Amino acid sequence: MFKTDLEIAQECVMEGIDTIAEKVGLSSEDLEHYGKYKAKIDLEVLRRNETKPDGKLILVTAINPTKAGEGKSTTTVGLGDALRRLGKNAMIALREPSLGPVFGLKGGAAGGGYAQVVPMEDINLHFTGDMHAITTANNLISACLDNHIHQGNELDIDIERVTWKRCLDMNDRALRQIEIGLGPKANGVERKDGFNITVASEIMAVLCLATSLEDLKARFAKMLVAYNTKGEPIYVRDLHIEGALAMIMKDAIKPNLIQTLEHGPVIMHGGPFANIAHGCNSVLATKMCLKLADYTVTEAGFGADLGAEKFLDIKCRFADLHPNAVVIVATIRALKQHGNVPFEELKEENVEAMLAGCANLAKHIETIQAFGLPYVVAINEFATDTQAEVEALQNWCQTHGHPMALSQVWAKGGEGGLDLAKIVVDLCEQPNSYHPLYDVQASVEAKIETIAKTCYGADGVEYTAEALEQLAQIKANGWDQMPVCMAKTPTSLSDQDKLYGAPKGFTITVREFRPSLGAGFIVALTGKVLTMPGLPKKPAALNMDIDEQGHIVGLF
Amino acid sequence: MFKTDLEIAQECVMEGIDTIAEKVGLSSEDLEHYGKYKAKIDLEVLRRNETKPDGKLILVTAINPTKAGEGKSTTTVGLGDALRRLGKNAMIALREPSLGPVFGLKGGAAGGGYAQVVPMEDINLHFTGDMHAITTANNLISACLDNHIHQGNELDIDIERVTWKRCLDMNDRALRQIEIGLGPKANGVERKDGFNITVASEIMAVLCLATSLEDLKARFAKMLVAYNTKGEPIYVRDLHIEGALAMIMKDAIKPNLIQTLEHGPVIMHGGPFANIAHGCNSVLATKMCLKLADYTVTEAGFGADLGAEKFLDIKCRFADLHPNAVVIVATIRALKQHGNVPFEELKEENVEAMLAGCANLAKHIETIQAFGLPYVVAINEFATDTQAEVEALQNWCQTHGHPMALSQVWAKGGEGGLDLAKIVVDLCEQPNSYHPLYDVQASVEAKIETIAKTCYGADGVEYTAEALEQLAQIKANGWDQMPVCMAKTPTSLSDQDKLYGAPKGFTITVREFRPSLGAGFIVALTGKVLTMPGLPKKPAALNMDIDEQGHIVGLF
Repeated sequence: MFKTDLEIAQECVMEGIDTIAEKVGLSSEDLEHYGKYKAKIDLEVLRRNETKPDGKLILVTAINPTKAGEGKSTTTVGLGDALRRLGKNAMIALREPSLGPVFGLKGGAAGGGYAQVVPMEDINLHFTGDMHAITTANNLISACLDNHIHQGNELDIDIERVTWKRCLDMNDRALRQIEIGLGPKANGVERKDGFNITVASEIMAVLCLATSLEDLKARFAKMLVAYNTKGEPIYVRDLHIEGALAMIMKDAIKPNLIQTLEHGPVIMHGGPFANIAHGCNSVLATKMCLKLADYTVTEAGFGADLGAEKFLDIKCRFADLHPNAVVIVATIRALKQHGNVPFEELKEENVEAMLAGCANLAKHIETIQAFGLPYVVAINEFATDTQAEVEALQNWCQTHGHPMALSQVWAKGGEGGLDLAKIVVDLCEQPNSYHPLYDVQASVEAKIETIAKTCYGADGVEYTAEALEQLAQIKANGWDQMPVCMAKTPTSLSDQDKLYGAPKGFTITVREFRPSLGAGFIVALTGKVLTMPGLPKKPAALNMDIDEQGHIVGLF
Repeated sequence: MFKTDLEIAQECVMEGIDTIAEKVGLSSEDLEHYGKYKAKIDLEVLRRNETKPDGKLILVTAINPTKAGEGKSTTTVGLGDALRRLGKNAMIALREPSLGPVFGLKGGAAGGGYAQVVPMEDINLHFTGDMHAITTANNLISACLDNHIHQGNELDIDIERVTWKRCLDMNDRALRQIEIGLGPKANGVERKDGFNITVASEIMAVLCLATSLEDLKARFAKMLVAYNTKGEPIYVRDLHIEGALAMIMKDAIKPNLIQTLEHGPVIMHGGPFANIAHGCNSVLATKMCLKLADYTVTEAGFGADLGAEKFLDIKCRFADLHPNAVVIVATIRALKQHGNVPFEELKEENVEAMLAGCANLAKHIETIQAFGLPYVVAINEFATDTQAEVEALQNWCQTHGHPMALSQVWAKGGEGGLDLAKIVVDLCEQPNSYHPLYDVQASVEAKIETIAKTCYGADGVEYTAEALEQLAQIKANGWDQMPVCMAKTPTSLSDQDKLYGAPKGFTITVREFRPSLGAGFIVALTGKVLTMPGLPKKPAALNMDIDEQGHIVGLF
């Protein structure tokens, strides 16, 4: 019987957070403690190290995942621990989990098996309050906006065209579409609204791209909230609350220090949606790791078509980061799915289907090559993998000249990632020609076409009438000189959920554009993206419990 | 020019929280640090001190306040500091402020002038996350309840009779009455709902009455959330999420340690509404102070008719607390209002009106006497008070044999509260005959009549047809053997806002009953109580700002 992630995490005897901090040259004075095992790091640390050269930056990405995920976080954590076992000064930069999904299907998650970060319970509950600060900031905008309308509407806001939604960190489908301001006039003006889950708030995207508190405030000021009845944009700055928002975020902007099960230092900070946002941890966290460590291992959401593309085209471009190597995580399970094996049969050996599915892996490798970066394929081992499958995949990699390592970090922690770590260290010594895929000055259509052809293998891009209308407005407002943030299904290279492998001869359809002006990108949506999840019939919450001694069960 | 509260607070050179903890015999190991100046105290401290005798308990209450408040928190803080200046081991137990109103009219508040608690900015923003945990727990109930209905409604919940509302810590009138579950079927079932402000959530009342994590969980299980179509009550335990709720509250249940401007130890924990709930800080916080200090100074919301009555009839009864003395705060401004001077003219000298207004003070003194407790009147000095007014009030107290002290803590800190502190120390040495006003086994009507006649000076109580119907249901369900929690305007002894002084010949009208089964009381509402405030035309948020160094302005 396997132990659960929670049981493994609870067995860990953590080191005090001051001890973890010392490993990367930080003193207790640099920290704001949140209990004994979590701390916020003062931004002064960045200022102090400004002239110090950056360490190496390693991105962990993946093929298109099954619904169970490919183990990117697990590989990221295990690789960090493995690098430290090799005597390297390595740090890990992760996204922080959202609280809402914890009560749904997911339970908690921060890596898995023996490649996890701790304290697991706190990380999956309120952590250091960053999500709650985002919820508060997001909803202050809504409250001030509706109050403005109620108090006379001097800005002439069109109540049919309020683009800013409320948010909660909860899986609550009943809040997707609501009507507010019902009842007597004192309850405000009636209009349609809805709640996003907190991680889908633009506040989160902005937090993760800001380089200072001043920058954060300036980005908040630029956020679009509505249009007036003349069709002109209304921004947060028109409501005069960017100062209050920055104040609400004064602690949330500071990166959080935690540890792996093997006591490696981890910064976990920010976690924007990987579809309507860019899906990476904060720029401040990554920059801090680069100053404090010689090797920084980080991850981006979903597969390389979404996560890596946005990491390399948006985050690295904005933050002037230069990655040194990319790890592409694949599982034999998912490769079989890309060979069109049904989800229920993924546990059964099927070498042929797996080899067919390698077309998906090959496409993601092409994408990373297109960015000019060296890479290694990490095969994240599952108990159901057969020797025949593993060998066939090793042969496939060797035949095509792809560097490859078997990763057993889930079962063995850092020890299981040593092969991978050695290759990564070598890759980091290679010169590389990293460059974003497109010029931001290109038209929105040209940028999307570049991404669709290069990263998805599409023949071209189509636009709905609605999308074209929105695009015209984006150009009219001068918002088109920004990167594009693609929202697409993570399970396929195409925009169709179940089109596995490496499909050919397809186009993708952009259905909607949403300007995220504070983040500084235009979101292009292909198909419906749900920004407020629901709970399943039997929510995970039903099995959760805590006793008087604080021992938790049911958090997976 | 006076300094603002924020400026005074920012000038304070705080002591590290470990230093504060040491003053009451706590070590760093007993704490969970939240930065350098805030900490949660482990509940183990209570278990360890179980057999130690309690210190003295002093309640600070007030006459019916003006809309600017009477300075109860200020007096509480100043009295605590004054007791320490007298060499006493004193602690202060306060409610934590709600975040929502900070952005409205109020700005921050945790005492005032030189009698404040710090770090002021943090206390008024996210503090240690207690409010956010309550919001999360409250809304998990709603999400699970609506999910249950959506997934087949096995409990046969009547969607017209869901009593549990969502909540946010925000002044957001547009959320008072909403319609949820709009749009496609996947968005859940359409029904009417609304948001309370977080402090009005029953989760908050329960947190403040719980004596352990197990007790908290048991109380959560008992909370009423809806009725089924047969009219039978549905509880949280029917949703099977009391374990998850307790887990969410695992840190929030721990009392928070902070300090006064004079570095006196303060526990600030919990802050339920003073109308639909009982309006006192948590039982755990109070009990912890009683074990750690020889003198505990605490407060209850609004005037003695509401706050003290509920403190003495609900909190002390449930928690088996035995108060030793009561401080009744009065201001010359408010006494003039009770002498029917309009709000705009309260700054002008008016001895005659003030003496007429003393009828209000006299009534509250009677109330405290009815509970069998010794008291002292604290005149909270304002800059606009004239010498003639102060002397007239002193004479009035002397003539009627009421112990009295002039309190100048706003202007002078603990130094300004020495006279008051000396009287309080003397009162605590007196034997007293404290007893709750009524027997919980009495009928609901009898309990309300006792409160109305004794504390309000009413001739009797009337009930609307709706209230009588609800009362019948309460009796049928066997919920009538609990204390009653009165919800009434704080500005008058009666249930009419502007009926100042000590009115005679009136009745009060109970319009609605709400069972708070987790808290363990029946709320009786006289008139409309708004459980979700709105923002004013120019919200305080518009003037708030923070610079790169973290310096905050506009938080008052």
